[in-house]
Amino acid sequence: MDISHIEHIGIAVKSIENSLPYYETVLGLKCYNIEEVADQKVKTAFFKVGQTKIELLEPTSEDSTIAKFIEKKGEGVHHIAFAVPDVANALAEVESKGVTLIDKAPRNGAEGLSIAFLHPRSTGSVLTELCQ
Amino acid sequence: MDISHIEHIGIAVKSIENSLPYYETVLGLKCYNIEEVADQKVKTAFFKVGQTKIELLEPTSEDSTIAKFIEKKGEGVHHIAFAVPDVANALAEVESKGVTLIDKAPRNGAEGLSIAFLHPRSTGSVLTELCQ
Repeated sequence: MDISHIEHIGIAVKSIENSLPYYETVLGLKCYNIEEVADQKVKTAFFKVGQTKIELLEPTSEDSTIAKFIEKKGEGVHHIAFAVPDVANALAEVESKGVTLIDKAPRNGAEGLSIAFLHPRSTGSVLTELCQ
Repeated sequence: MDISHIEHIGIAVKSIENSLPYYETVLGLKCYNIEEVADQKVKTAFFKVGQTKIELLEPTSEDSTIAKFIEKKGEGVHHIAFAVPDVANALAEVESKGVTLIDKAPRNGAEGLSIAFLHPRSTGSVLTELCQ
């Protein structure tokens, strides 16, 4: 697989509004976009840190996977996303190497990206996203 | 604070040896260094992904903080490290903004870096390292 960089790190938060002061005032990062991804039932906020983005994920519904994550594990790092040139090709490659896929085919994520998740049981317990 | 990029992502693993096939064969990353950090009671393995490194952390003792992390939370993302020009200055700045420090002064980390950790209760539950 041809990973160019870490596209983003997804961090689960209860409230983007309450989290912004830490990222903006303490770390000095600038939130350049907040958008809702309706089918994932999350609101997302993005910060750029060099090549990589930090994506805060706030659940917009109690049955959001992010709400369930926070309930079980608390706020914190939710997933790591690697940038690849072609998500469909990368999925086929990792599946052929024994990785369990959450998404069998690419789907639409925040910021107009094509994305797919790999199952953490195949990735050392790190929920892993591929995106292009 | 003047963060240039994400220097590395630390991932707690039970065994570097058992984790290498996923990172090398599935993700196609190359482990370029394995070293032991005696005072942190860990063995570390490094991979480069664009600007950022992935640092696998294997406990070398049962009383290593990484061993305790794995016992409590399982394997997975342990911390995020931001690159700053001067760790001591950055520590003073974030402390003045109310952040609780784990390390009051910079200390030596893997790869000859000067590092310091911020307490996750001040950072949205993300264990955060500053390094230069």
